[in-house]
Amino acid sequence: MVKLNSDLVNLSGNYLFSEIGHRVQAYKAAHPEKRVISLGIGDVTRPLPPVVTEAMAKAAREMGEPGGFHGYGPDQGYSFLRQAIAQAHYRDRGVEVSPEEIFISDGAKTDCGAIGELFGRENRVAICNPAYSVYVDTSVMAGRAGGYDEKTGRWTDLIPLDCHAETGFLPQIPSQKADLIYLCSPCNPTGVAFDRENLAKWVDYANENGSIILFDGAYEAFITSPEVPRSIYEIPGAGTCAIELRSFSKTAGFTGVRCGYTVIPQALKRGGVSLIDLWRRRQATKSNGVSYITQRGAEAACTPLGQAQLKTNIAYYQRNATALKAGLTDLGLRAYGGVDAPYLWVETPHRTPSWDFFTRLLEGPGLVVTPGAGFGPGGEGYIRLTAFGSHEDTLEALERLKEVLS
Amino acid sequence: MVKLNSDLVNLSGNYLFSEIGHRVQAYKAAHPEKRVISLGIGDVTRPLPPVVTEAMAKAAREMGEPGGFHGYGPDQGYSFLRQAIAQAHYRDRGVEVSPEEIFISDGAKTDCGAIGELFGRENRVAICNPAYSVYVDTSVMAGRAGGYDEKTGRWTDLIPLDCHAETGFLPQIPSQKADLIYLCSPCNPTGVAFDRENLAKWVDYANENGSIILFDGAYEAFITSPEVPRSIYEIPGAGTCAIELRSFSKTAGFTGVRCGYTVIPQALKRGGVSLIDLWRRRQATKSNGVSYITQRGAEAACTPLGQAQLKTNIAYYQRNATALKAGLTDLGLRAYGGVDAPYLWVETPHRTPSWDFFTRLLEGPGLVVTPGAGFGPGGEGYIRLTAFGSHEDTLEALERLKEVLS
Repeated sequence: MVKLNSDLVNLSGNYLFSEIGHRVQAYKAAHPEKRVISLGIGDVTRPLPPVVTEAMAKAAREMGEPGGFHGYGPDQGYSFLRQAIAQAHYRDRGVEVSPEEIFISDGAKTDCGAIGELFGRENRVAICNPAYSVYVDTSVMAGRAGGYDEKTGRWTDLIPLDCHAETGFLPQIPSQKADLIYLCSPCNPTGVAFDRENLAKWVDYANENGSIILFDGAYEAFITSPEVPRSIYEIPGAGTCAIELRSFSKTAGFTGVRCGYTVIPQALKRGGVSLIDLWRRRQATKSNGVSYITQRGAEAACTPLGQAQLKTNIAYYQRNATALKAGLTDLGLRAYGGVDAPYLWVETPHRTPSWDFFTRLLEGPGLVVTPGAGFGPGGEGYIRLTAFGSHEDTLEALERLKEVLS
Repeated sequence: MVKLNSDLVNLSGNYLFSEIGHRVQAYKAAHPEKRVISLGIGDVTRPLPPVVTEAMAKAAREMGEPGGFHGYGPDQGYSFLRQAIAQAHYRDRGVEVSPEEIFISDGAKTDCGAIGELFGRENRVAICNPAYSVYVDTSVMAGRAGGYDEKTGRWTDLIPLDCHAETGFLPQIPSQKADLIYLCSPCNPTGVAFDRENLAKWVDYANENGSIILFDGAYEAFITSPEVPRSIYEIPGAGTCAIELRSFSKTAGFTGVRCGYTVIPQALKRGGVSLIDLWRRRQATKSNGVSYITQRGAEAACTPLGQAQLKTNIAYYQRNATALKAGLTDLGLRAYGGVDAPYLWVETPHRTPSWDFFTRLLEGPGLVVTPGAGFGPGGEGYIRLTAFGSHEDTLEALERLKEVLS
């Protein structure tokens, strides 16, 4: 008789955004007359820029021509895309990352989970609290989380990096020794970002302990503050302790196109084994790479014209974030983030439990937000708002909030 | 200090087709004057049919329009594609599979590895010998293979289903109890396929033992024999013991576009847990689905027009397979498969070791084949040829073989 994976069975409940989706669908079905505005899931809404869609349409047609057809691509991604990323996202910003160190994937979410396969089950994992739920969920699935404590909402074997308003929601170095450390900057869900000095503390800690930092930089395009690094490799020593996970989803509007990349430095070794070799073997065995059409689109997003067209979209969302932050503050709410990130992290009135506030906003003004508790117990009493809606919806959402809160 | 995944580190050597790729590249670099013909990796060469490329180009342009942009798609795949598959690939052939039971992915290779996450490490896995190397490699990575025995070329904990010429290369029911059973029909690499009667024996065995069959049907489009089932769900009882893995790669020429699907029947449960629920949770947590553009292309491939256009490509490859089989037989070689599959499984002259014969064919006539030993020790003394080349190259390869063998 086959035995199921008890670690996967242990993962109770639904994936956070699936759960929110189900609740919103049910509400909409029961209230078809109501126009619900979503500031919930962090999904972009602006159309892709012309340079990207044209590149993809051209690549699609190319696949129909005798001389233009592309079958299996290189496991690691096409050289044209890895070179474009190395240039536009690293070299042009003064960071040296070789195309050989870049692995193209269908998105940072996939890599966030898969990267765990490089490491033994026995490793201790440190995760921010609150954090993007995929870090915790995939650690549970890998058997590294221990048991779930209903009372505290924590997993017994994870090292929690509690993030509080008092410390600007930045995680503090733990007293325990963590083997794997997930860091996200600019952070989903809190919208705050490390400055160089604070990130350097983690790089030093990791190098001292032989730990590895899994650095999620999915939101780097939203950074405006000069003291905030866009890549962990801006920090000296990161090449021997950090893997960087990147995505075209939020930076180029690729949530529906699916493309991301992971950087594993040549210098990153443990026990004499190069992690880049191990990842190459993993990827070659478990994946056949990413659509040629997608990779041509991503390449176009890296060109100067692509970068310029994308900046317009980023600026559009940043304008939303600024409006949200000002509006929420006017309403007397404590709102964090929203400067170097498309997310605002908002204390609920009187620290109302976040799922209660979620329901109140859905059923009252018809607003979808993400309950902070969905990101871990440290998110209780908060909600996350995204700046990814249309400008009109964002202003309308603020109006609706004003009515319900004043 | 972080500990690496010893199961992954255990996986010595390169992924088979990466290894072949390296050797061929090195040879080409040293002999730029020589035109090498590949009958090696099973990669298609015919351009995508117009209905598919037009659908993808249209979808790409749609993503650039305010009303046409698509962000995150449903975790399980768009309903339009799941319905198209349920209709074209099941209902139209008299098999009932609900769209709810279909999960879209970026390819069968991805799913072949990922599906193992549903099951505990302690399960005993039965794998054909020879077999598609991903079954063994991902079992090693999941810690289910035990140790590698250099002398026999076998993994100690896998249950080998040895396939011989005497039994038509079909696996026989083992005396041990296997929990998970990988079956591939039409088979990569041997090119043979189960008839209904022989496949029913496996379904009965699995239902009696509570085992689960992972049925790889990536090559079903090549089936011509009426007694060969195109889906395992044509066999009574398969709904309670089988997961079917399918791909658009070989059926629709999507090796470079990346789309496949996995069917998990609602009725498939173990220990009171529905595997479909478990897979849904896994997919929602570890993947963000497949490109909207790709899914529109796959949908087009399922339409009557798409099916008709694709049949031309399949017929083209089948013509190659027929020519190869006849030509090889004329040369006095024993060639199997090639009727319901795009692969021919060929005994080497005097059972020459397959890597030696690989080198001889590369360095002599400039032909790339896949050494049978790459598919397990049972493949020693054989090579695999694919019918996916151009017709001209296929005939030219036969001519070159004639010169070297006669």
